[in-house]
Order: sequence, then structure tokens, then C-alpha cells
Amino acid sequence: MATNPRLVSFLAGDQGPWQITANQPRTGAAWPAAKRLQVVSGDVQSLGSAWTLRGVLSNERYVSRQEKAELVPRSAPLGRPNADRAALIPIRKSAAWWALPQDERLAIFAEGHNRIGLKYLPAIARRLHHCRDLDTVQPFDFLTWFDFASEDANAFEDLVGALRQTEEWKYVDWEIDIRLQRQ
Amino acid sequence: MATNPRLVSFLAGDQGPWQITANQPRTGAAWPAAKRLQVVSGDVQSLGSAWTLRGVLSNERYVSRQEKAELVPRSAPLGRPNADRAALIPIRKSAAWWALPQDERLAIFAEGHNRIGLKYLPAIARRLHHCRDLDTVQPFDFLTWFDFASEDANAFEDLVGALRQTEEWKYVDWEIDIRLQRQ
Repeated sequence: MATNPRLVSFLAGDQGPWQITANQPRTGAAWPAAKRLQVVSGDVQSLGSAWTLRGVLSNERYVSRQEKAELVPRSAPLGRPNADRAALIPIRKSAAWWALPQDERLAIFAEGHNRIGLKYLPAIARRLHHCRDLDTVQPFDFLTWFDFASEDANAFEDLVGALRQTEEWKYVDWEIDIRLQRQ
Repeated sequence: MATNPRLVSFLAGDQGPWQITANQPRTGAAWPAAKRLQVVSGDVQSLGSAWTLRGVLSNERYVSRQEKAELVPRSAPLGRPNADRAALIPIRKSAAWWALPQDERLAIFAEGHNRIGLKYLPAIARRLHHCRDLDTVQPFDFLTWFDFASEDANAFEDLVGALRQTEEWKYVDWEIDIRLQRQ
């Protein structure tokens, strides 16, 4: 069967345009070190990689019509020429999160994640990858990839700092913070 | 990597406890005929099957706290001894559905699917399987499996008839209705 075209692989090893400059556990166990990373869409050969994380682009699940109307016009695409910094933040959420009904998860996002994210547009571009419903067991539930210019590095720290104070983050039981620089 | 333990495969061919008694397209192209079906959780060998459909059990996405409080106590498990009838209903939804913001999809479910489903509990047991975010391209977005006793067959017709009248079903662009009897 054909590979899902929305599947994205993060291949860490000795190759790739991104140099891994930091790899820190924020909650839970550490994640293996590697030198470089490449981000590949669709089918992929992971031969020789130190590790591979995979996720799929999917429909949005926590954004209302009104929020979307605010977010979309202010969002920037990934890969802008001056975006030479990136972050890959794999997270896993607890069973308690997944047992919450949709209205309560939506309310937690509306008060936290969505409102905070809006403040850092268009400086910080982001893309969310879902791992939980792939065919194989994945270590994390989500992989978020961000890119931004060096001059927005402080804004990025403020963004992740604010997210980690939200009600949503009480349900994050594993989080790795990987930082990268484009060579 | 280990197979996702929430992955379920529907294997059609010459084997399995369920005899396929009908296989009708409701919207879109027909689906290949087969005699029998087996439902297998986890990893699977699909050698020799006429066709295989795969989906993953996941968190609920359209049920509020209040609806869940009504639905859960009235729901029956699959596989009751007298549940000798089943239906497998694969559907695909349009791009317009997937582009709707979550609050609007939630409202469509609250007015339609959730309210209708409640009326047929506990007679009709059901399980939803998500196909859209698997590693490989799948023909359908969802597979719903229902089982019920022969004496509830008319109730099941009423249920699917009512669902097909909902706002939600305007977004269904492919639907197959497969009926089965346990041997």
C-alpha cells in the first residue's frame, strides 16, 4: 500500500541540513543524542539513522472558527530564508488527557495554547505531527516542529515557557526539547 | 517497531466467523465481494484475503462531558452471545468536512449523530475505527462495526436511516454498507 503522503519522518544521525545544538528532557527520560537531523515527507529509508520519529499531518482538532480566522492570516510558512533556527518538541500526554471529553479539551486549548500561540505569529512558524494513531507504537503522541530567525530566539523561549505554564501541560508526562541550527 | 495494539483489521475472504450477507454502495463506487469476514486486533497476516480494511481505536473527538454521561451507562459491549448480526460501514468524508473547524464539527455531531445514537442503546453496540492517519493510504476515513441481535435488526435500519438524514452525512462522499451474520 502507498505511504500516507501526510507522513513526515525526522531522521537523526550524521546527515541532514540541521545541526542538533541541544537535546534536553523537560519531563521524563532523556532522548538519545545525535549530530544532525533531516525532515523527510512521505516514504523514507531510515538506514543508518541514530533515531527516527514519525508523525502525520492531520486535521485541526482544537481550533474554533473564530480562532482560525485570527490565526490563519497571521501564520507564516515553514522554511523562510531567514529561519535558521528550529526546535523539535516531542511530547506524550497522560491517559487522563485522552479520557477527557472533547469539550473540555477544547476549552483547555482555547484558554491556553491557542491564545498563547497567536501572540508569537508570524515570528514563529510551526507544524504539528500526530503519532498516536500510526500503525506502529510510537514513543510520543505529538511532534511539533518550529522554525524562526535568530532574532526571534527570545520570543521562542517566551512561547515555550508560557505553554509549559498552561493547564494543558499538566497532562504532558514526557517532553523532550531539541534545538537545531541550519548549516 | 511493535504494531499499535489499538489497530484492528477486517479481513474478508473465505474464512472467518462472519458470513457476508450484503455489500452495497450507498454513495460512490462498489466494494469487492467476499464470502466471509474476520475481525483481528493487533498484528495480522493478511495472506489470501480478498480485501483488508484497517483502522485504529482512538480517543473520542465529538462527545461532550454531558453526552458521555448519558451514553456510557447505556452502551453495550460488542460480542454479546445473542448478537448474531453485524454491520461494517466504511465511510469517507469530503475535504470540506476536514476543513471545518472543530467547534462546527462538534455542533454537527451534537445535533445529529450523538442524539440519534443514544436512542438505539443498548440494543446496538458499536465501535469506531479511524483510518485517516495510518502510515499507508487507506480507501476510507472510518470503519464502524456494529453488532446486535436479530430481533433488533429493524432498530438498526432505523438508526442508519436516521444518520443518513443528518447534516454530517452531507459530507460523506463514499459509503459502503456491509451486513453480516454469525455462523
